[in-house]
Amino acid sequence: MDVFQAIDERHSYRGAFTDEPVPSDDLRAIVEAGLEAPSGCNAQSTRFVIVNDPQLTDRINAMPEANTPIRQARAFIVCIVDRNPPDVYKGLSFQIEDCAAAVQNMLLAVTALGYATVWIDGWLRKDGRAETLGHWLGLPTGKTARILLPIGRPAETVQRKEKMPFEERAWFNQYGSPVSLSEQ
Amino acid sequence: MDVFQAIDERHSYRGAFTDEPVPSDDLRAIVEAGLEAPSGCNAQSTRFVIVNDPQLTDRINAMPEANTPIRQARAFIVCIVDRNPPDVYKGLSFQIEDCAAAVQNMLLAVTALGYATVWIDGWLRKDGRAETLGHWLGLPTGKTARILLPIGRPAETVQRKEKMPFEERAWFNQYGSPVSLSEQ
Repeated sequence: MDVFQAIDERHSYRGAFTDEPVPSDDLRAIVEAGLEAPSGCNAQSTRFVIVNDPQLTDRINAMPEANTPIRQARAFIVCIVDRNPPDVYKGLSFQIEDCAAAVQNMLLAVTALGYATVWIDGWLRKDGRAETLGHWLGLPTGKTARILLPIGRPAETVQRKEKMPFEERAWFNQYGSPVSLSEQ
Repeated sequence: MDVFQAIDERHSYRGAFTDEPVPSDDLRAIVEAGLEAPSGCNAQSTRFVIVNDPQLTDRINAMPEANTPIRQARAFIVCIVDRNPPDVYKGLSFQIEDCAAAVQNMLLAVTALGYATVWIDGWLRKDGRAETLGHWLGLPTGKTARILLPIGRPAETVQRKEKMPFEERAWFNQYGSPVSLSEQ
């Protein structure tokens, strides 16, 4: 799939999944896309656990207050970061940026392979869910599950959320300029 | 360009740029890719200023301690976030994740269009550079320049940094598992 088409077609999917399993090779290809993302000072800070063991997916499916994709997915990708990220540049860490860039690559790979997913972030950080999931996946003490991607074949077409137009979020040369200065 | 090819070919470019200008339409297409990225609770928190006015690019080119792409680029994309991000979900903000996902889309668009760039982040946050750049671009008080992308045609082939293999960063079902549990 063309990269601009993948960028355009990618959307957060909160509908049902079909029963079709997600082959391990496809899950690996999706994570390989994540591994290719840039990272601050090339620290490659994000770790990934692919979950497709039914004993584990059953547990994740049953987590409280889960949305439809989490309840139904037979495969997940979990992104893992440090609880206390080390400084990599003058007192700064880029762990969250690194992880998000990897996720974005994976969302595009998911789209190109005909699957659907939704970026689960805040939900995972509440009510001890990241700790529970981390325990199931055997995370070391210093690591935490930051982002969860339920993966499956979409069983329905969902309404995509509207996005603001270019003119409300982007400008040439001056913030909020009513006229495109490049065209003056 | 195929999305997996773009993901594979994207790399941080710290070499020289040719003199070839970057058309406004291409810069807009790159930013449109950024606008398509997901954002927490669809807040669409990132703003973008495309810089191609020579009076401004000259100033950015002359910023102290700049690397080669910053010194030479005749076009930049600046990603802008809130200084004090509002809560969008149970006390959480996803502004950094939103911005990074948008940048990743833009890096792939840059690659597909035959340009090169490098994600400038920590450098911009040090020694008052973000404040200086924000002043030049007319940012409102509550906004700050978070990420800078110098854009141009690459004049040379650079050595890409090595990435760790899959087995050192990703596993099936258990963190750090020596055996792929999916294959047992």
